[in-house]
Amino acid sequence: MATTDKASPRDRLLDAAAQLFYSEGVSIGVETLCRTAGVSKRSMYQLFDSKDEVLAASLEQRIPWYEELFTPAGPEAGTPRERILYVFECLEKASTDPGYRGCPYLAVLVELKDPEHPASAVARTAKERLREVLRTQAERGGARDPELLARQLMLVYDGASARAGARVESLDDGLPTATAAALLDAAGVA
Amino acid sequence: MATTDKASPRDRLLDAAAQLFYSEGVSIGVETLCRTAGVSKRSMYQLFDSKDEVLAASLEQRIPWYEELFTPAGPEAGTPRERILYVFECLEKASTDPGYRGCPYLAVLVELKDPEHPASAVARTAKERLREVLRTQAERGGARDPELLARQLMLVYDGASARAGARVESLDDGLPTATAAALLDAAGVA
Repeated sequence: MATTDKASPRDRLLDAAAQLFYSEGVSIGVETLCRTAGVSKRSMYQLFDSKDEVLAASLEQRIPWYEELFTPAGPEAGTPRERILYVFECLEKASTDPGYRGCPYLAVLVELKDPEHPASAVARTAKERLREVLRTQAERGGARDPELLARQLMLVYDGASARAGARVESLDDGLPTATAAALLDAAGVA
Repeated sequence: MATTDKASPRDRLLDAAAQLFYSEGVSIGVETLCRTAGVSKRSMYQLFDSKDEVLAASLEQRIPWYEELFTPAGPEAGTPRERILYVFECLEKASTDPGYRGCPYLAVLVELKDPEHPASAVARTAKERLREVLRTQAERGGARDPELLARQLMLVYDGASARAGARVESLDDGLPTATAAALLDAAGVA
């Protein structure tokens, strides 16, 4: 996410937004955002209607990265159970980074407290994508109730990411994976 | 939490802080806080060193209310399993309030992104209390690994409260209780 002179003002704004909102929160100001991006406020307002739109666009731009996070290489990689557990193993690995602050999409939703905000809509989409991935694999794995299992796994995923990001929990002993495995067992996904 | 003329400036500040930080987030300013509380900035700074201290004190003041939330009437009320499930039933009930924004303590931790902030320390204490309640009941209920079960249940609790507060999940069909029940079964708490 290093900004280079070659990046366009738009890309520099999106990179700076992603970085600042994640580490500092959604309340950072336009001044800080523009200074970090090396873009004038005038240029920012030529590209975006508001800071809210920069936030929404920066979250949207990162959805492919987010999806890649929980997709093992190759569409046929592993059993449905393995593919579900892979999502939680990735979370455990990510949480060991000193800069880890939890899932960026959940954090934005918690911080904004406004389902109508343009960035909230993007964040909901990102979270829905993950739920759909889990639901698809739950179905392929023969879960008794794939929708219920996917929703249960999302509670574990978001609880683990929020608690680890807030430094009230450490995931490096495999807590989320063990919890997900217990729920897979209960749902009949062997 | 209605503020009355009879309440002291300190109590009015703490009530206004609890209400505003919960509904708007930790970035609300001193002006708004003092105006809502009907207290001058001068008076606020005579009572507290900073807005951060008001936030911390308002969270601390509500810990007994938070603990009461997940304690059924009477110390002998129900089996350990019932007492654990009661915590999740309360969460489901609370989440149906239109003003529900998730667990206030988790929200503060997510928003502040700073484990050293005085309010983060209070929030961690509140979350630890709940984990201890769950651990005690898990032990009484004969869980194979009471500490692991308590940590798993906290993932579900915080995931459910954050997702419901962010309006990406609805808990009114008993999702958290069903998830907790599956984990209790897996841990051998009948």
